[in-house]
Amino acid sequence: MRTSIATVSLSGSLTEKLTAASRAGFDGVEIFENDLLASPLTPEEIRARCADLGLSIDLYQPMRDIEAVPREEFARNLRRARHKFELMRRLGADTVLVCSSVSPLAVDDDDLAARQLAELAALAQDFGIRVAYEALAWGRHVSTYDHAWRIVAAADHPALGTCLDSFHILSRGSDPKGIEDIPGEKIFFLQLADAPRLAMDVLQWSRHYRCFPGQGGFDVPGLVGHVLHTGYRGPLSLEVFNDVFRQAEAAPTAVDAHRSLLALMETVGAAQLPPPVVPTGVAFAELVTPDSAPVTAQLAALGFARTARHRSKPVDLWQQGDARVLVNTGPGARRDGTQLAAVGLESPDPAAAARRAEALLAPVLPRRRAREDVPLDAVAAPDGTELFFCATGDPELPDWRTDFVQVEDASASPGVTRVDHLALTQPWHHFDEAALFHRTVLGLRAQESVDVADPYGLLRSRAVTNADGSVRIALTVGAAPTDDTVRAQHIALATDDVIAVARRFRDAGGRLLPVPANYYDDLAARHDLPDDELATYRELDILYDRDAHGVFRHCYTTTVGRVFFELVQRDGGYRGYGAPNAPVRLAAQHAAR
Amino acid sequence: MRTSIATVSLSGSLTEKLTAASRAGFDGVEIFENDLLASPLTPEEIRARCADLGLSIDLYQPMRDIEAVPREEFARNLRRARHKFELMRRLGADTVLVCSSVSPLAVDDDDLAARQLAELAALAQDFGIRVAYEALAWGRHVSTYDHAWRIVAAADHPALGTCLDSFHILSRGSDPKGIEDIPGEKIFFLQLADAPRLAMDVLQWSRHYRCFPGQGGFDVPGLVGHVLHTGYRGPLSLEVFNDVFRQAEAAPTAVDAHRSLLALMETVGAAQLPPPVVPTGVAFAELVTPDSAPVTAQLAALGFARTARHRSKPVDLWQQGDARVLVNTGPGARRDGTQLAAVGLESPDPAAAARRAEALLAPVLPRRRAREDVPLDAVAAPDGTELFFCATGDPELPDWRTDFVQVEDASASPGVTRVDHLALTQPWHHFDEAALFHRTVLGLRAQESVDVADPYGLLRSRAVTNADGSVRIALTVGAAPTDDTVRAQHIALATDDVIAVARRFRDAGGRLLPVPANYYDDLAARHDLPDDELATYRELDILYDRDAHGVFRHCYTTTVGRVFFELVQRDGGYRGYGAPNAPVRLAAQHAAR
Repeated sequence: MRTSIATVSLSGSLTEKLTAASRAGFDGVEIFENDLLASPLTPEEIRARCADLGLSIDLYQPMRDIEAVPREEFARNLRRARHKFELMRRLGADTVLVCSSVSPLAVDDDDLAARQLAELAALAQDFGIRVAYEALAWGRHVSTYDHAWRIVAAADHPALGTCLDSFHILSRGSDPKGIEDIPGEKIFFLQLADAPRLAMDVLQWSRHYRCFPGQGGFDVPGLVGHVLHTGYRGPLSLEVFNDVFRQAEAAPTAVDAHRSLLALMETVGAAQLPPPVVPTGVAFAELVTPDSAPVTAQLAALGFARTARHRSKPVDLWQQGDARVLVNTGPGARRDGTQLAAVGLESPDPAAAARRAEALLAPVLPRRRAREDVPLDAVAAPDGTELFFCATGDPELPDWRTDFVQVEDASASPGVTRVDHLALTQPWHHFDEAALFHRTVLGLRAQESVDVADPYGLLRSRAVTNADGSVRIALTVGAAPTDDTVRAQHIALATDDVIAVARRFRDAGGRLLPVPANYYDDLAARHDLPDDELATYRELDILYDRDAHGVFRHCYTTTVGRVFFELVQRDGGYRGYGAPNAPVRLAAQHAAR
Repeated sequence: MRTSIATVSLSGSLTEKLTAASRAGFDGVEIFENDLLASPLTPEEIRARCADLGLSIDLYQPMRDIEAVPREEFARNLRRARHKFELMRRLGADTVLVCSSVSPLAVDDDDLAARQLAELAALAQDFGIRVAYEALAWGRHVSTYDHAWRIVAAADHPALGTCLDSFHILSRGSDPKGIEDIPGEKIFFLQLADAPRLAMDVLQWSRHYRCFPGQGGFDVPGLVGHVLHTGYRGPLSLEVFNDVFRQAEAAPTAVDAHRSLLALMETVGAAQLPPPVVPTGVAFAELVTPDSAPVTAQLAALGFARTARHRSKPVDLWQQGDARVLVNTGPGARRDGTQLAAVGLESPDPAAAARRAEALLAPVLPRRRAREDVPLDAVAAPDGTELFFCATGDPELPDWRTDFVQVEDASASPGVTRVDHLALTQPWHHFDEAALFHRTVLGLRAQESVDVADPYGLLRSRAVTNADGSVRIALTVGAAPTDDTVRAQHIALATDDVIAVARRFRDAGGRLLPVPANYYDDLAARHDLPDDELATYRELDILYDRDAHGVFRHCYTTTVGRVFFELVQRDGGYRGYGAPNAPVRLAAQHAAR
């Protein structure tokens, strides 16, 4: 099927929008009238630009407040429509969207609406144009898709069909099953948008909070399934009004948009992509740093040993149990200090994982970073983190460790057993996109999004995990673009004895993030913990949480560059990440800066 | 009456919040528990800090999920409460907020709720503490203030009273008149917040969208009037959860907050402020510029004449009709280029206007900028713009023009008659605050806020005006902090013949902002304008709008630094500012950069 996107979904000038849509692989666009009005390009120039970019113009939109009005008003509307049809002829657009009227002049008279729409369609036909009539969810008299279709059916004109929009249908709670009663050839266009489930005025919801399919709470694939069942073969087109996308750079937004559409097409069986290969563990986390001393001192105090060194590059492997941290002091380390630059994910089929990522528009990284390296499959996540697909220890596949020369045995009795989770800070505008990427590209499951109060603004956090929890990535985003640089990434290390590992760390000279005494007074009020247990937590700055399944105890190192470590002990099947303690941790981190 | 603010209303660490509240003139604070938990200060240190800052601790909040639960659960709750009462004793706080329960364990049994609250109050009394019970709008069984009061009345304990919160009452549409049935001495606390009228889930509305009184849509003064009628003499306290305030700097937010409370107290007769002195016109607009040539070239082409020069400073007065523009090349001109730095407002009583501004926490500027200057009353607006209160031509008051030496007569037949309006770009977080400032300090009326689509994000715009429209200020804010620097301010100049003035400007070498041809095609479609009229608009880049009252025609100069000029002609009582044309103008400005 062909893919399309409304220009209103992207930021910038019309030229920027068209370029972004084309580069992201869309086949066509809907031209939003205001984008055309504000453009210095003539319709002919826009037509040529689209042709150069390989984009068809699938829809011109919208025309408003046309139908079911008194005769003189309708005459004015036809006059206006004739102007627009002339414009569309210059533009080379052959379908126009007409939204159901919100005019106070419109009357509740389906026969009149049908007669006037048929008259409009007759005029359109003279220009070789088709009219797609759509029910706005807040239309004055026509607000449901089946009502709009009844009027179209009654008008019975070959140049008049209906346009379906998933937002208008699903926001009203209409049953999309009835779509199957519409003949496919009378569905002239299909606009898709998802949206978070919000109890709010539907007009505001629509204008500000739409999102790409898979980012919200609607069953968009279900609706598309019904539409395909009718025989509809037009494009799947995204029409998303969103305050954030309006400000975001057009190019990455267009890529995220197209990825969401490809994933949707896969879901409904309209596209075949390489199947997801769900990662089965964390092979390594790679830090880049201009000065390795502070971070390796922390690793050593945490019980890590430097077990190997890269053959040809300034990269050390630090290991403890199955937790592996690469410390890279090479040219990738930039002036912004120590940061988490890459993640190795264990994969049953690294090449297939990379093929899926590429099909879903993830930039594929060169298989070898240097001539002598083992070839590894890797892609870039939306936040720039490099994701390597690894098969550590698999004799039949390249092992990334082949590039490393052993310098020391890993410590025999580790306190840290493996990486519990990784927390990656996302750029301001890319929170939902990041979750969609990890879900569709990697086949991870997205958990609920939570708000976390930082002293200087609200953060949102959302974890993506595999089924057994051996891969957990917490995606976090600040409340404003200015927050990006101050938010740290972190590596959470699993242990079966957080108290012992924290004490060992401190005794080895490591610095734990200090937790305020007031926190422990509150812990005593909330939970009936033995005094000595509480005293130990207080002594070691250990935080405590409980859910329906079990208990979570965790503590933090101080931050180096943009990175810190967390020690976590999960008991009894605790599923979270200690979110109730995050405000205290964030305040302590601000205080420590 | 005493004023107070909940620490949750401000951004930063507890110390930063307390300092900001004190500096803004609040008498006391509510300590939000999470702020205390995250603070490295002990309760005793917080108590001492508040005392040093002259702040009383009026409330500790909140305690949740206490009442109407099974016996064992209630025993645990009392244990928790005892911990908190001990904490409050250390803190020196004597009133605690208890919110109506949202726990799934709570049962719908008012008698049980009353008995358990009485028991809690008895325990509190041992610590010298009073319990203020409040109905959360989303409480499980108790969600209205009158219901909470019935339970408090039934409990009949001297240490138990009720807490009223304007958000919880007004968001549910409860009639606040019933407050008068509560004895004033049983109202232990009053929390105030306003909110925009949003049709959304009340919990989300409350947690993210509260605002300061006068910034939203609630009748907060009406509610306070009912409370005062009961004899309540406790503090008026602001409790505002707002995503934006969480990120904004605490100090200016606290000032805005206190201003809103002072204005509220004036409205309900609980404070006497110097009465507003509504400005009656625009005396001048002052541009500062490091290089006056580009902007004075525009002024000259617009028909302005340089009529006077400041006696001792590099400031020129350019005039046409009653429109006066000061061009200042002095040290106030910073590297960020030409900008609108000050506005002179005609005032019937400049000194009284300044007194009111000062009473409402506006920074008062030195009356003389230099030793030899005429003493002028001036204050700083929240965006940093200097507002001078002027009495141009009044023989009994100092005239700012006394500092100027005439160099030329103003042109005899001006095309520009006066300043129509000024558009001031507000810092990201200060849109509602700016409107509140202009409303309360200057006595201007705020019009409806409108969204304007810029190619790179949504802008919000709101005009404040006096009754006859001789003072109009359009306040505009971008959708993100990054927008601040790119948004231009402008001076809109009124004319009775925009075509003649635009042509004169262009013929004199002035450059008008080019308007896309597509705009005029659309104008032809929407309005039945004579061809020659349309051709003239097209030729002179004149935009057109119409409302129920009349017609608006306007055009723009290109931008110099951060400033541009608009020529506007209002006919037939048109009331707006051409907002429908703003997206086209903004796109053209982006394209011109």
